Amino acid sequence: MEPTKAIQYARDNRERYLAELKELLAIPSISTLSQHKPDILRAAEWLTKQIAAMGFQNVAVLPTAGHPAVYGEYLRAPGKPTILVYGHYDVQPVDPLNEWTTPPFEPTVRGENIFARGASDNKGQIFAAIKALEALSKNEGVPLNVKFLIEGEEEIGSPSMAAFIAQHKDKLKCDSILNTDMGIPSPDLPALTYGLRGLAYFEVWVYGSAQDLHSGVFGGSVANPAAVLCELIAGMHDADGHITLPGFYDKVRKLSDEERAEIARLPFSDDDWRKTANVPRLDGEKGFTTLERLGARPTLEVNGILSGFTGEGSKTVLPAKAMAKISTRLVPYQDDNAVEEQLNEYLRRHAPPTVRWQVKKIVSAPAVLVKRDTPAVRAAINALQATFGVPPVFKLEGGTVGVVSTFQTVLGVDPVQMGFGLPDDNFHSPNEKLHLPTHYRGIETYIRFFDAAAQ
Amino acid sequence: MEPTKAIQYARDNRERYLAELKELLAIPSISTLSQHKPDILRAAEWLTKQIAAMGFQNVAVLPTAGHPAVYGEYLRAPGKPTILVYGHYDVQPVDPLNEWTTPPFEPTVRGENIFARGASDNKGQIFAAIKALEALSKNEGVPLNVKFLIEGEEEIGSPSMAAFIAQHKDKLKCDSILNTDMGIPSPDLPALTYGLRGLAYFEVWVYGSAQDLHSGVFGGSVANPAAVLCELIAGMHDADGHITLPGFYDKVRKLSDEERAEIARLPFSDDDWRKTANVPRLDGEKGFTTLERLGARPTLEVNGILSGFTGEGSKTVLPAKAMAKISTRLVPYQDDNAVEEQLNEYLRRHAPPTVRWQVKKIVSAPAVLVKRDTPAVRAAINALQATFGVPPVFKLEGGTVGVVSTFQTVLGVDPVQMGFGLPDDNFHSPNEKLHLPTHYRGIETYIRFFDAAAQ
Repeated sequence: MEPTKAIQYARDNRERYLAELKELLAIPSISTLSQHKPDILRAAEWLTKQIAAMGFQNVAVLPTAGHPAVYGEYLRAPGKPTILVYGHYDVQPVDPLNEWTTPPFEPTVRGENIFARGASDNKGQIFAAIKALEALSKNEGVPLNVKFLIEGEEEIGSPSMAAFIAQHKDKLKCDSILNTDMGIPSPDLPALTYGLRGLAYFEVWVYGSAQDLHSGVFGGSVANPAAVLCELIAGMHDADGHITLPGFYDKVRKLSDEERAEIARLPFSDDDWRKTANVPRLDGEKGFTTLERLGARPTLEVNGILSGFTGEGSKTVLPAKAMAKISTRLVPYQDDNAVEEQLNEYLRRHAPPTVRWQVKKIVSAPAVLVKRDTPAVRAAINALQATFGVPPVFKLEGGTVGVVSTFQTVLGVDPVQMGFGLPDDNFHSPNEKLHLPTHYRGIETYIRFFDAAAQ
Repeated sequence: MEPTKAIQYARDNRERYLAELKELLAIPSISTLSQHKPDILRAAEWLTKQIAAMGFQNVAVLPTAGHPAVYGEYLRAPGKPTILVYGHYDVQPVDPLNEWTTPPFEPTVRGENIFARGASDNKGQIFAAIKALEALSKNEGVPLNVKFLIEGEEEIGSPSMAAFIAQHKDKLKCDSILNTDMGIPSPDLPALTYGLRGLAYFEVWVYGSAQDLHSGVFGGSVANPAAVLCELIAGMHDADGHITLPGFYDKVRKLSDEERAEIARLPFSDDDWRKTANVPRLDGEKGFTTLERLGARPTLEVNGILSGFTGEGSKTVLPAKAMAKISTRLVPYQDDNAVEEQLNEYLRRHAPPTVRWQVKKIVSAPAVLVKRDTPAVRAAINALQATFGVPPVFKLEGGTVGVVSTFQTVLGVDPVQMGFGLPDDNFHSPNEKLHLPTHYRGIETYIRFFDAAAQ
């Protein structure tokens, strides 16, 4: 039975919803920068007020070893399933700040989009789930049991969440999980995500002299740590785009022919993707299509590099040290903890004796695959079909949500992975945005999903 | 006839000299950073007061297209030669600031050294020449004609000096030039420098997307500008340490067997040099000794590199662009203006079509060789022998002093290149210092040099 009143309520309240979303988006809850700890707490408290206002109980900002998690529960549907709604309230840093058209924490509507850091990843998505439940609670009623788990560490790899979930295993017990930190390929093509890449993130340091040297006085007689780091990075891919860390591909899951055929059937255009990425030409590992490269193959990227003098003008310095942030995206069944040793082994084999080097592990999470045949997945399919008018596709996602593997191993539940980010939403980039027509469809889909999951 | 009174005067006034030097060192006259323009002017004006106080005439801060130059003249020795004393009052930037034991513009004596940015390069040296002339002026008298040219652009490659010297060609007319921006191999081994490497300094930019991308969403499907830049830099040297820019070595002057034998006779220890550089192991172009690599062979160095996220923690970004500061040190008879085209040609051949790129030229200066058989060189040899007790060696210097080639081409004079910096003075690095016993010998050498040059 269609929850028509709740859907109408959500439509009638769009203006107020948007005003409230702007409040959340205005909070600079950047998890990786320690000076934003007060903002992290403000965002968490803002969410508890929203959730408590719907009549949820035991609403609290629960401490973890790192940033706190928001919890709340609505357990008034005996005999009905319990669904855990997951999202995160932390956001990525905003640099380079000068590339933002409007400031990242001054949410601004332009055309069909609202621009702000976190608008799509993930504040807008978790907000849509909250507002779907508000619409139900004010009309047909919330038809099943719901728990919220909204964390503040997703953008730094959820370092505290495995311990937190184990500690609160009973409190978080559920029949299914809705992971809202997801997207769809385009506004008219709904999707469910059945695989996520893992992540292993490092800093690689190369050291030469104890301090910067004069490049004229010493240049030509000692190794240049910046140049050595460049050589080491250049060697991490071969000419075909394969990654050369020893043993890196040993456990990589091979795509079946059926899976490759299914991926090939997805409506996807290399040229459209090139335009979305805004690059002169696509690139990638030989022997795979773009969609396979994005979801089913591991990657290694330089996320940042810094050495020597990078200010205005010239400084003729031979840098003392050089640092690169290097991360790998992993696929099933790679061991995220093994990558650190593979990287160390690569450096042992290839770093010259003219420098010293060090690998610092920042964070890691394994890749995951989730079940596609659960009752909650069927409820999601129906909700997406009803809202978008077409059935969803199943897709592999290139990004990482660190907590999903913990859901599987500790709670024993495979999440339904359904959110409404779009590929051009600029997550992690300047001018992040949320496409409002898609956001409104997201709220309606969630209303229909909770309704269908209760049946 | 030994100028004994002047030498004694310099010894008696060491304490006052040091106090005055501290005033000059306290001025942060960093030429490459535009916010320091007022400090540049302050340093120039401080020098005019010192020079005017010795009875010099026409003392002025003369404008150039960039930072001004200090001029002053003492023309009261008719029939005697005129010597132009050259130095610079600008200094290098100070980053990384946290590696300085005491702040770079709070001159501090520790042991036998005074620590400050510019202490050795070049404020301490030009100050020694001024104080040598003060000592003469108060005692035996200045025995020849002297002009000062102290510029404020040496550390940025003297971009305005060629035009300035051409404009003031008559004013700067002289019989010989003393270039104080030089050093000696060790406190007990005096030297004259007969060759300087040239410099060609660039920024290389590699561009991918118009903005940073999410490394999970786009990673594996597009080129990474930071990784591409690393590959391009890695390819700029071959396995033997030769530079691969097309045509780079075409005009490189070959060392004669006699010159190689002379270099080999210099008192130089690879192990001592390794300790001075403070590196695990020396490195360099195959087929050449360390001293040949330093003075007689061109080099290519990464002076800085920057891309993506380099802050605290992790940000899973695929950078939009990457930049490296890359400079080459040139030897006779390389054309410094040709290097830009060689670098562009290298990038045309090797940059992949998945990125766009750009080369920005920052500054360049040719390599120079100076005559070793002039009357002024003979006066310098005698002064060094008298002060240090051993004759000077002739050396090739790895650094660059952009204005020297203009002295040759516009004024038609080859400078005597004599200064008293030491290899471990940390020019361009944190904790730059001046070795005071060597500095005092430098003042006495300059007194004897002016005296001998007047004969």
